[in-house]
Amino acid sequence: MSDFITSNAEGPIENFFNVYDLEPMAQKVIPKGAFGYIASGAGDTFTLRENIRSFDHKLIVPHVLMNVENPDTSIEFDGDKLTSPIMLAPVAAHKLAHVDGEVKSAQAVHDYNTIYTISSYSTVDLPPVTEALQGTPEWFQFYFSKDDGINRHIMDRVKEQGIKAIVLTTDATVGGNRETDARNGYVFPVGMPIVEDYLPNGAGKTMDFVYKSAKQKLSPRDVEFIASYSGLPVYVKGPQSADDVERSLDAGASGIWVTNHGGRQLDGGPAAFDSLQEVAKAVNKRVPIVFDSGVRRGQHVFKALASGADLVAIGRPVMYGLAAGGRTGVKQVFDKLTSELEMVMQLAGTQTIADVKNFELRDNPYDPGFGSYNPDALQLY
Amino acid sequence: MSDFITSNAEGPIENFFNVYDLEPMAQKVIPKGAFGYIASGAGDTFTLRENIRSFDHKLIVPHVLMNVENPDTSIEFDGDKLTSPIMLAPVAAHKLAHVDGEVKSAQAVHDYNTIYTISSYSTVDLPPVTEALQGTPEWFQFYFSKDDGINRHIMDRVKEQGIKAIVLTTDATVGGNRETDARNGYVFPVGMPIVEDYLPNGAGKTMDFVYKSAKQKLSPRDVEFIASYSGLPVYVKGPQSADDVERSLDAGASGIWVTNHGGRQLDGGPAAFDSLQEVAKAVNKRVPIVFDSGVRRGQHVFKALASGADLVAIGRPVMYGLAAGGRTGVKQVFDKLTSELEMVMQLAGTQTIADVKNFELRDNPYDPGFGSYNPDALQLY
Amino acid sequence: MSDFITSNAEGPIENFFNVYDLEPMAQKVIPKGAFGYIASGAGDTFTLRENIRSFDHKLIVPHVLMNVENPDTSIEFDGDKLTSPIMLAPVAAHKLAHVDGEVKSAQAVHDYNTIYTISSYSTVDLPPVTEALQGTPEWFQFYFSKDDGINRHIMDRVKEQGIKAIVLTTDATVGGNRETDARNGYVFPVGMPIVEDYLPNGAGKTMDFVYKSAKQKLSPRDVEFIASYSGLPVYVKGPQSADDVERSLDAGASGIWVTNHGGRQLDGGPAAFDSLQEVAKAVNKRVPIVFDSGVRRGQHVFKALASGADLVAIGRPVMYGLAAGGRTGVKQVFDKLTSELEMVMQLAGTQTIADVKNFELRDNPYDPGFGSYNPDALQLY
Amino acid sequence: MSDFITSNAEGPIENFFNVYDLEPMAQKVIPKGAFGYIASGAGDTFTLRENIRSFDHKLIVPHVLMNVENPDTSIEFDGDKLTSPIMLAPVAAHKLAHVDGEVKSAQAVHDYNTIYTISSYSTVDLPPVTEALQGTPEWFQFYFSKDDGINRHIMDRVKEQGIKAIVLTTDATVGGNRETDARNGYVFPVGMPIVEDYLPNGAGKTMDFVYKSAKQKLSPRDVEFIASYSGLPVYVKGPQSADDVERSLDAGASGIWVTNHGGRQLDGGPAAFDSLQEVAKAVNKRVPIVFDSGVRRGQHVFKALASGADLVAIGRPVMYGLAAGGRTGVKQVFDKLTSELEMVMQLAGTQTIADVKNFELRDNPYDPGFGSYNPDALQLY
Repeated sequence: MSDFITSNAEGPIENFFNVYDLEPMAQKVIPKGAFGYIASGAGDTFTLRENIRSFDHKLIVPHVLMNVENPDTSIEFDGDKLTSPIMLAPVAAHKLAHVDGEVKSAQAVHDYNTIYTISSYSTVDLPPVTEALQGTPEWFQFYFSKDDGINRHIMDRVKEQGIKAIVLTTDATVGGNRETDARNGYVFPVGMPIVEDYLPNGAGKTMDFVYKSAKQKLSPRDVEFIASYSGLPVYVKGPQSADDVERSLDAGASGIWVTNHGGRQLDGGPAAFDSLQEVAKAVNKRVPIVFDSGVRRGQHVFKALASGADLVAIGRPVMYGLAAGGRTGVKQVFDKLTSELEMVMQLAGTQTIADVKNFELRDNPYDPGFGSYNPDALQLY
Repeated sequence: MSDFITSNAEGPIENFFNVYDLEPMAQKVIPKGAFGYIASGAGDTFTLRENIRSFDHKLIVPHVLMNVENPDTSIEFDGDKLTSPIMLAPVAAHKLAHVDGEVKSAQAVHDYNTIYTISSYSTVDLPPVTEALQGTPEWFQFYFSKDDGINRHIMDRVKEQGIKAIVLTTDATVGGNRETDARNGYVFPVGMPIVEDYLPNGAGKTMDFVYKSAKQKLSPRDVEFIASYSGLPVYVKGPQSADDVERSLDAGASGIWVTNHGGRQLDGGPAAFDSLQEVAKAVNKRVPIVFDSGVRRGQHVFKALASGADLVAIGRPVMYGLAAGGRTGVKQVFDKLTSELEMVMQLAGTQTIADVKNFELRDNPYDPGFGSYNPDALQLY
Repeated sequence: MSDFITSNAEGPIENFFNVYDLEPMAQKVIPKGAFGYIASGAGDTFTLRENIRSFDHKLIVPHVLMNVENPDTSIEFDGDKLTSPIMLAPVAAHKLAHVDGEVKSAQAVHDYNTIYTISSYSTVDLPPVTEALQGTPEWFQFYFSKDDGINRHIMDRVKEQGIKAIVLTTDATVGGNRETDARNGYVFPVGMPIVEDYLPNGAGKTMDFVYKSAKQKLSPRDVEFIASYSGLPVYVKGPQSADDVERSLDAGASGIWVTNHGGRQLDGGPAAFDSLQEVAKAVNKRVPIVFDSGVRRGQHVFKALASGADLVAIGRPVMYGLAAGGRTGVKQVFDKLTSELEMVMQLAGTQTIADVKNFELRDNPYDPGFGSYNPDALQLY
Repeated sequence: MSDFITSNAEGPIENFFNVYDLEPMAQKVIPKGAFGYIASGAGDTFTLRENIRSFDHKLIVPHVLMNVENPDTSIEFDGDKLTSPIMLAPVAAHKLAHVDGEVKSAQAVHDYNTIYTISSYSTVDLPPVTEALQGTPEWFQFYFSKDDGINRHIMDRVKEQGIKAIVLTTDATVGGNRETDARNGYVFPVGMPIVEDYLPNGAGKTMDFVYKSAKQKLSPRDVEFIASYSGLPVYVKGPQSADDVERSLDAGASGIWVTNHGGRQLDGGPAAFDSLQEVAKAVNKRVPIVFDSGVRRGQHVFKALASGADLVAIGRPVMYGLAAGGRTGVKQVFDKLTSELEMVMQLAGTQTIADVKNFELRDNPYDPGFGSYNPDALQLY
């Protein structure tokens, strides 16, 4: 490992009123190149910006007199009772945000009690993360090797940890044009032990190099192979259209993960939340749907659930919470979104997550011309 | 009561050309925390900003050669002749804006002659407000207690005052995420005598605490209870959809109050004016409709009336007028909106409020990309 | 007359590349209050701004290989051969912009050869204006008196001048809320000789006073009265809807003038160009249509003609040209718009104004989010 | 030739991460007037700005698990194997950007291997450009003379060079109102040898003069004449509607070139990319379609191809690359767009350009309110 130095903070984070607050805090304690890598998007950042903005395309019309009190955010998923449908997205390299990396975030996810998705590009190896989770459900996000022998080896290790599902990332067979990284001359400062068989000495490599080390030529056959070799449910991460849903389900996918990789891959594509509407219709409740990309508010979680998501994953906010407050900080992020979700549920007249999933949003025919969160337009006093 | 010090102004307010002018004047004389509480909205303030902006979704196409002169804004409502359909919304804690609080605003409403809605969180008790009104019609806005004994006691007192209607607020069973208050560490500096049975020592409490002291689990049964116990007409304040209208009317509501609480409760919901269109269609003239949220102009009043409202309530502008000019200032606010309304009526070709209510607005298919009032875009010379 | 001092410029204007350039030039030579009166709009200036912006709602798709060369902007109207369909709108009080007032602008309209509309609030009396026009067609814009005797007297004088049509303004029975004037404490510094019978000593009066001196209670009967007493064609200035067209034509109008008074009267109403589409459909070529409000470009003239206008009137640009360059300046304004119109005609593939009127515009389903002319967004180098 | 001095740079260009980066670099090395001429647009620059912005009207929904690796951007066109469908648009006067002018850009197009379109207003004569191309396919863009004898002479010379197609520009029979040039008092500093028979001593002339020296009265007959006299395929450059497509094809056009001249001609018209949708439907694969105007990204190339273009031409970026890096710089521009296109093809799940052309884009019902590239809104770190 390199001599990369980043935050070693441990919370509680002060002056934290919403998860947007965390970005500037994190920027102060994460080195510039690493922060740019985490925060930035691809190309013109159109898709990055549309991700948050798109939540305004659907409106929550409150229902009143609904006999609601202390709404319950908890769900049962795949046999586990979770605090809420908010889970951890597979974010690479938590050590960019905190010296202890994935161990801290896993401890926090345990504290909160939801699903942890470990990235192939985790900067901590599988066993210590599983250990930190202490039985909290864990999924594995797979950046597939070109060598099936290596893939089998990785899956063998994954199964040893008792991991419950495999998430195959399909939208990143090459890196998007993340020009912030290029301008910063950014190279990965930390190695990635899980994939060291096909990506040895990951530290010092560009993201382009990292992506190209993985397999480009993904096909339905890879889904079948993972499903049959691992015996685990496979979530295909990437479909944003009905076609892709069918291709994935035909190949044996057990779930669909709607995302645009946080606006980091294909710029000029739709906001993930806009795609969720079409995907949910295509899936038609045959398998679970996970959603990520742009979630910064309890109301975003609510809208995603009401649009067909079963689980809602967060990424950057967790990295920022990790940088600003370590284990405690990550827990605060989940708690903040949960308390916002509870408030929205109460005001919308929904007692349970099942009620939220049945809630009908109203289309917004007007384009608000500003994002959901626009500090310049925000009316603060 | 705390040693909270705020404005003791008494008008007339100078340099007052529209009600927007009052906000910065008020900001100068109200302490920061209290001003933030009055002015700010929930979450990303999306809904707060859309409230004003949404009036541009409908356009007034003038009718010419309509034989109109000196248009008449007056209406008769529930047996009372009122100067106009513009009435006072139930705003909490007028003492935040002026040392004499609700007494001054009640005097002004008497001077103007319209309906005064006293809030449960009034900082002046019921009798002095009723006294200041000198027979001007008064409604009571109810934050419901968890204890029906207390509710009965409050209703007994309300009836003693000769109050003519009860307004049940249903969109605020918990507080919205008003982050300005959180950032300011704001606590209520003044007590609320009407609800002291269930909220003793309100001064020093956060708004969250205040809201949680009231009943969360509101249901149609509560509407029935108020109607039957009080014998007064009950306005349900909160419905923004046809479903909620039906639920409220089935429970015995005598009127529907369309609002989103001035953008202070559920952010990510629709502008109240946009909801008014749907509510009016659902109500279909069975009961009166009151509208508030975002009204800053005579043309807004006109558009709300033409969209189905029978009464149009204002809140923040009154608080600002109270801070900037006391009794006189509040009267000036009503007079300003009334003279603007008269001008709009004349130019639109409508002689009476009945004409306004029959006026057909034109849909605006274009989103103007700026609010109705945008100081930066405004062409002043 | 007061001792009001304004521009006495005589052109040619330098550094004049489009008519927008003239506004800041005029602002330098016209006193603040008078300039504010000319330039500003009503209320939130929403309608003022939409006037220019709305031209982007329709697009000119060029037609190529159309065998066009030296396109001909001239038209014949009511027996007169005019240089183009661009004519002068009735603007009050040209002496606000130039010491010689309407005399200079009439000379320029003669030089250019189009229709001059004299305002009832002209600061020069009828005879010298007619004289300056030297036979160029002249129309009279009528602010109607409450006293029909006075109206008859004015019409007698109008007919003496050989004026060819009367334009009855119906959208200004009271003044719009022009807050710039209110903030500037603006009073009219110059008297208005044509209406001195009902508005003596106009100098020193507010616009509100001026408007209220005229008749509010306009009706179809007034159109009939003017038509029958004067025997002249009557253009009703104000209709923006099919209803108003029918009411006007039923009363004997010989033409419809689509306008929103340059955004100076009813704020919150539609852009005049948007209304033109509906009016043209309703008129269906039964009578001529004049259009004004927001015209600043040759392409605007083209779009108005292609949307059904027969004549396109300009106001503020003429006042700015008058202030910046007197008779020569006003002529330059007409010439600039004409040369722009010629260029657009050539590129659009239209040889004659008749071709332009048959040209089909393309709807723009996208709202550009910026006005046709946005100095901040403009790409200049 | 005048003593005009401009860039003599030879690359490689440093700190070049996307083609937008080149504009400010070029601005530093090209004299102000010439840079303004290259960069600016007509009128209010509405159409100029919409050109880039309009690519957001269609979205690329990625297709995953498509078995794609190392996508192939090459195409065969008219018997030539090209590196990609990205070709050079006919840009006038490359010597404005670099002292060696078209020679350098032709060498770069040879290095890259695509189609070079030489402008009638080339500042280098035909033979040296053809020589620099060394057999790389060359097209000739024709500004038609009023004198058919001259036109025959030009075509004779064109055929001598072995040029493969003639492009007749039809959207520039007069110059657009390029006010930047007018404000800069810009005159062409360099002569144009190809058209010296009808435009001798071009140096020192305004663009208006240049355009007016060519033929205005273009008609289908001119297309027929070029086709029959030259025996070469004729591309009509200018159609943006179905009508114009039919008129061109009826006259014998062998291809349609969709453009709005980079927003330099008719302001107030549609974005070229928006017109491409209608043109492609009208052409219905009968002849090839070339597209230009606003292409700055690999995703723009992808979207144009998926909307019916067979070739996508670039102009300003080449001029900027030429100014910033000469032959190497121009090659870098083509390489950058190609590598972006490859990335988009990989992420979209398209192996070949044929796949791209069959790709279905998703309509974007929301207007993003900002251009594809908005430096102010861009999230860089």
